[in-house]
Amino acid sequence: MFTKLARTKVFRDPIYGYIEVDYKIISDLIDSKEVQRLRRIRQLSGVAMVFQTAEHSRFPHSLGAYMMAKLVCQNVEGMNDISEYEKLIFQIAALLHDVGHGPYSHAFESVLGIFHEEMTTKIILSNQSEINQILNKNSENIAPDVANIIAHGGKYPLIEQFISSSLDVDRLDFLQRDAYFTGAVYGRVDFIRILRSMKIIDKKLLIRASGVNSIESYLMARYHMYFQVYYHPVARSYEYLLENIFKRIIDLKEEGKSLTNANYFFNVLKNKNDISSYIELDDAYVNGLIKQFCKSKDHILNTLSNAFIHRNLYECIDLSNEPSIETINEIKKSYNEEELKYYFVESKISGAAYFESKKSAINDIKILLLNGKIKSLEDYSPIIKGLITSSVRTIERIHYFKK
Amino acid sequence: MFTKLARTKVFRDPIYGYIEVDYKIISDLIDSKEVQRLRRIRQLSGVAMVFQTAEHSRFPHSLGAYMMAKLVCQNVEGMNDISEYEKLIFQIAALLHDVGHGPYSHAFESVLGIFHEEMTTKIILSNQSEINQILNKNSENIAPDVANIIAHGGKYPLIEQFISSSLDVDRLDFLQRDAYFTGAVYGRVDFIRILRSMKIIDKKLLIRASGVNSIESYLMARYHMYFQVYYHPVARSYEYLLENIFKRIIDLKEEGKSLTNANYFFNVLKNKNDISSYIELDDAYVNGLIKQFCKSKDHILNTLSNAFIHRNLYECIDLSNEPSIETINEIKKSYNEEELKYYFVESKISGAAYFESKKSAINDIKILLLNGKIKSLEDYSPIIKGLITSSVRTIERIHYFKK
Amino acid sequence: MFTKLARTKVFRDPIYGYIEVDYKIISDLIDSKEVQRLRRIRQLSGVAMVFQTAEHSRFPHSLGAYMMAKLVCQNVEGMNDISEYEKLIFQIAALLHDVGHGPYSHAFESVLGIFHEEMTTKIILSNQSEINQILNKNSENIAPDVANIIAHGGKYPLIEQFISSSLDVDRLDFLQRDAYFTGAVYGRVDFIRILRSMKIIDKKLLIRASGVNSIESYLMARYHMYFQVYYHPVARSYEYLLENIFKRIIDLKEEGKSLTNANYFFNVLKNKNDISSYIELDDAYVNGLIKQFCKSKDHILNTLSNAFIHRNLYECIDLSNEPSIETINEIKKSYNEEELKYYFVESKISGAAYFESKKSAINDIKILLLNGKIKSLEDYSPIIKGLITSSVRTIERIHYFKK
Amino acid sequence: MFTKLARTKVFRDPIYGYIEVDYKIISDLIDSKEVQRLRRIRQLSGVAMVFQTAEHSRFPHSLGAYMMAKLVCQNVEGMNDISEYEKLIFQIAALLHDVGHGPYSHAFESVLGIFHEEMTTKIILSNQSEINQILNKNSENIAPDVANIIAHGGKYPLIEQFISSSLDVDRLDFLQRDAYFTGAVYGRVDFIRILRSMKIIDKKLLIRASGVNSIESYLMARYHMYFQVYYHPVARSYEYLLENIFKRIIDLKEEGKSLTNANYFFNVLKNKNDISSYIELDDAYVNGLIKQFCKSKDHILNTLSNAFIHRNLYECIDLSNEPSIETINEIKKSYNEEELKYYFVESKISGAAYFESKKSAINDIKILLLNGKIKSLEDYSPIIKGLITSSVRTIERIHYFKK
Repeated sequence: MFTKLARTKVFRDPIYGYIEVDYKIISDLIDSKEVQRLRRIRQLSGVAMVFQTAEHSRFPHSLGAYMMAKLVCQNVEGMNDISEYEKLIFQIAALLHDVGHGPYSHAFESVLGIFHEEMTTKIILSNQSEINQILNKNSENIAPDVANIIAHGGKYPLIEQFISSSLDVDRLDFLQRDAYFTGAVYGRVDFIRILRSMKIIDKKLLIRASGVNSIESYLMARYHMYFQVYYHPVARSYEYLLENIFKRIIDLKEEGKSLTNANYFFNVLKNKNDISSYIELDDAYVNGLIKQFCKSKDHILNTLSNAFIHRNLYECIDLSNEPSIETINEIKKSYNEEELKYYFVESKISGAAYFESKKSAINDIKILLLNGKIKSLEDYSPIIKGLITSSVRTIERIHYFKK
Repeated sequence: MFTKLARTKVFRDPIYGYIEVDYKIISDLIDSKEVQRLRRIRQLSGVAMVFQTAEHSRFPHSLGAYMMAKLVCQNVEGMNDISEYEKLIFQIAALLHDVGHGPYSHAFESVLGIFHEEMTTKIILSNQSEINQILNKNSENIAPDVANIIAHGGKYPLIEQFISSSLDVDRLDFLQRDAYFTGAVYGRVDFIRILRSMKIIDKKLLIRASGVNSIESYLMARYHMYFQVYYHPVARSYEYLLENIFKRIIDLKEEGKSLTNANYFFNVLKNKNDISSYIELDDAYVNGLIKQFCKSKDHILNTLSNAFIHRNLYECIDLSNEPSIETINEIKKSYNEEELKYYFVESKISGAAYFESKKSAINDIKILLLNGKIKSLEDYSPIIKGLITSSVRTIERIHYFKK
Repeated sequence: MFTKLARTKVFRDPIYGYIEVDYKIISDLIDSKEVQRLRRIRQLSGVAMVFQTAEHSRFPHSLGAYMMAKLVCQNVEGMNDISEYEKLIFQIAALLHDVGHGPYSHAFESVLGIFHEEMTTKIILSNQSEINQILNKNSENIAPDVANIIAHGGKYPLIEQFISSSLDVDRLDFLQRDAYFTGAVYGRVDFIRILRSMKIIDKKLLIRASGVNSIESYLMARYHMYFQVYYHPVARSYEYLLENIFKRIIDLKEEGKSLTNANYFFNVLKNKNDISSYIELDDAYVNGLIKQFCKSKDHILNTLSNAFIHRNLYECIDLSNEPSIETINEIKKSYNEEELKYYFVESKISGAAYFESKKSAINDIKILLLNGKIKSLEDYSPIIKGLITSSVRTIERIHYFKK
Repeated sequence: MFTKLARTKVFRDPIYGYIEVDYKIISDLIDSKEVQRLRRIRQLSGVAMVFQTAEHSRFPHSLGAYMMAKLVCQNVEGMNDISEYEKLIFQIAALLHDVGHGPYSHAFESVLGIFHEEMTTKIILSNQSEINQILNKNSENIAPDVANIIAHGGKYPLIEQFISSSLDVDRLDFLQRDAYFTGAVYGRVDFIRILRSMKIIDKKLLIRASGVNSIESYLMARYHMYFQVYYHPVARSYEYLLENIFKRIIDLKEEGKSLTNANYFFNVLKNKNDISSYIELDDAYVNGLIKQFCKSKDHILNTLSNAFIHRNLYECIDLSNEPSIETINEIKKSYNEEELKYYFVESKISGAAYFESKKSAINDIKILLLNGKIKSLEDYSPIIKGLITSSVRTIERIHYFKK
């Protein structure tokens, strides 16, 4: 039904060796300007400030998620029964799942009140986007179907689960990719074994009992990437710094101060449906803005921006080391009221939250015994039960500028 | 004090890149016949039957443990205060810690009632061994001091802990090495980070709070290597088969049957101090014996030996799959009384036992907070507490010959 | 003499595991804004357009070159005789050797007539730079001594050779690093063996005969990285595109057209000693400019800029495939005179040039026989002789826009 | 036509991740006793004496060659036109290509006058072998067809080329595998790119011009594995030692001395068609014999055997270091006539021979230009021409016992 390329295209990739593209529509989507834009948005924003080699963008990850979708189609028992069309929209959804990300995603989203999944579906459905034009040229069903998958619309529940759940192609790719680029020893995932443990019965995904330890390993690799990489205090400091820069420029704007070159940012702040402004936002744009703010006459914006560009990040105190209250009060007292708002951040990352928020999802992982019975992962695996019930590791930190 | 080589010797190694030898005594020990013998004893015996590339011997692991001891000396804060002599006996103990192993160690030890640590100290102290002669030529203190470390004699408690505890140079090397040679994705250990987290205060080993997650990762890597590699049903089947071959030849001997070429084996069975016979036992010797038994007139020995050589291993049923009692009874009924003794094995490996037996050891890992307080690992890390209290995963299996 | 850090700092790195910093001056230099700027300049510019994971910046490479300098000090026989001061300026020179690079270096340098080594020495010597201030705070000799090394001033010939020759710390790091980040299979270098093959006699670097094959492998790895990665037609297309964008804006400026936000660029064009403008130039700045030019009213600048941002690169014809002259003429005829200047590029990369320009340098590699005699690498190694005399592989290509 | 397994079987492998078996006949062949025997024959015999981790057997390599054959079927353009039957016998030939190897192959073959390819075809065709029975059970054509391929019988020229030529599945697997297990940095091969460069036209194998550099890299990786690993002086010493042990026992036999336990060896010496004796020969058998000879009353056999077991290998002088003739004469004079025969070995390995003997084969590699023309590799690639014409690197060495 869908045109294949005369000769398949390949991308060299350190995780898979090669990523092969066989459908013309996939090749066209990769070349679209919205997917190419992902080359200009780093996957891990602040993490590169502490793991200096983690400078990779969202573009190779998007190719990787697409590749993982292909591997699911090839390796998971029962995928043969899925139609070619469904496999294709699965692969497309995997390729496009991140196109709605803004630069320095988390800080950006929290300040602008944006959700990247929402932006992804908007871009897919908007006739302003090249993606939308490519999809429609092939069939007018694809864009709404892919958007439905991204938005958990319920039309393709199995594919939805593969695109976004506690064991999806997104995570299966990024854990390994981020481990490779940070140089972290942990985070490797035996994905072929995981895929071969899966079995689809009645369009439901089950894990064979014999493969449970590969799932346990995956969940632990994930735990470690979160605590050792994604939640690293220096990476978080960088994000908070950025968040406060965004807050400051919004505050200045509200006070009526004029800021040059920040139009795209303010356009999106005003109107989340302004896709063409949104598409202009990338790391280069944000870095360019902040470099310019390094010379701002506003002392706070100037300070934050210079700190960001020249890596004079916030200091960090981990409360598990039980610092005295006096120490903290002294720090607070060193700021005036306005500074306190931007120079002092209290953060709380809950390990429990991390695991609990996924608890239902983790329990969605169903184990198929040899005798045909089905159990939840938590009931089958004592070590996972242990992780879920005891991993109440909350990280409480204070990030601040030393005066 | 101890002679250094004019030019250091290096061994290429996939884990460390190069292993460098600088002292002449180390170089001589490596060339001794007892250490060279370790080239003829596989590290993982039965595991190679399921992970076909895990064919490595104990020799590169011994070099690796020595290398890890050197890395401890170079990277752990406080090791500078240890004398050159103590560092040297530490490195020697690491190099020699496995010389007492017999071929196919576990099956061998359980049938012959031998403990490899005990044999190691005997070999180090016996004037029949080249090792002993090399050590004495340098200083007459070394042999008893190294033996004291191996035997937990209490003279060098810090070194003992590095040689044999839940976080020792043995494990730090073999987890990674076994992962490399099986091709397992898990099992990698960030050993430099672990070593840099350690700090020696008053000859006691402490772990800085900031390094706890590298210890958590190490313990999980260990958990997975146990459950996915070392306890793999096929590997266990192979060990039980070997154990039953040993048992059968002992039984036949007791019945007065003569067995050619098995003298070294029976010598050791009679006298555990017969070091020179013990040294003759290696994989080639055992394989040679068993290949010869493939033509034995004793039906059971013949069957077991052919199964071993041509890889017709026991079938395995994992009881967690809840097989019916009838199935099991039927299997049992298919054997006569004598066959039942050799053809049917009930095994129980306790995950709890694994973790609990190490529990005290794990609690020996002491965490140093930034404020100077000390906590046990279990108290500091909820995830480790979870592992210890909930990992009651017991593996119960039946291994048997299908008739 | 130079202050050491109370506790060494480490950077996780996929090539070396960890990069350790022990001197305070090194740590301060890493935090300087000129070194931090290297985070914003990609190591391989256009290569990421074809090897999409090669997105790494010059910053981790600079740390890597510093690490390689430390490894030279630790592993090369005879380095013990070098003073602490010389070792330190060697390590500093390695760390700083790339600070003079502009964004998208080659295109940039060729259009602006800049040499990055020259800019590096200017930055080191200029009292406008943080680097200069840090160096002077420690000793006023360092800045001129390091600049002398970078500029091949002849004061420290051995260190010069390690910093810039056919076998220097720069290449030893980047070949491996670029292989890792492209995912290329070739390009790995057994650097420890290379370093252990080196011997310094009378401040001259020699290679032991026993280590020649590691040098051969290194030269071949280099050959392949050049032909498979650095000279890849797509990567070159991207560079030519950029070069033509730069040329166009210079031409437009000369025609008196005004271009907003391009001040730093024109400042440097006017005055190569304007270090503070130069420092502002980085990838984000160039990308920001080009993104803005995507909306330029000048048709050519608009076309080139959109091609650059949305990856509609030049097509490429390799003349070794012997295309007909008509084909090429037809392409040329499709442009008007002005387009021809920007849309059609004839390129010639000479393999011979690559090897020959290094020929003298390669012959600088001197081999030390066991009997004490010294030979040139070319005389000792027939395979290298073969490479030098026969590798006249010239790549001739045409890059053009399809109309 | 051929039965597929209900569920594919997988083998974990460090080179490919997983090796998947889908046909029942392949699975049965892997379990045959002749293939299982390859677990007891090391791939690289003496190499493990210098690269101590290169202890891998021929069994994983045989699986690897089979996997590479599957990858050829999946990746090479034009393989779709080959019938299922031909693909299957290709994969079977790849799996079985080494079953005729004896223990410590090269020494063994040269003394016994055996060629392993010949023994492989004998085993495949002999009704004494399990392999033969398995093949015949499926179709009586397979055994002769596979034997024809191994013996270069000309019935399937394309498959013959993939099984044994300068670019065959054997080499494509072992170069990487041996690099992995030695820990060598060089020897990696971008096999997917090589396979994707291949194109079959009229049952002839061609290489696209665009892929030539991957072939160049492969040939250089091969060059380096030969000179750095396979020809390493210590590895060669070990082989010569073994060869001389074999020679000595043949000489003793001829002198009428009796030697216990050596029957299988002498059976094969007498009759090369005695497959069942041949099959009994493996590393354990040879090691067992030699360990027994360590107590031989014949001084020479005793000396050689102890040297072999306890690694007192021959010393080695490389003549390229230009030792004086007196030195060599002195060594010779230290032996009596009989000792000279066994204790002094002159060896000559010709790099030219290595490349020249393959020269025709290398010229069999045909390059397909974009315009449809075909050139020989040598004519297309100056660097290969350089290698062929100049790589007359002959290694001349003397191996001897120091007295």
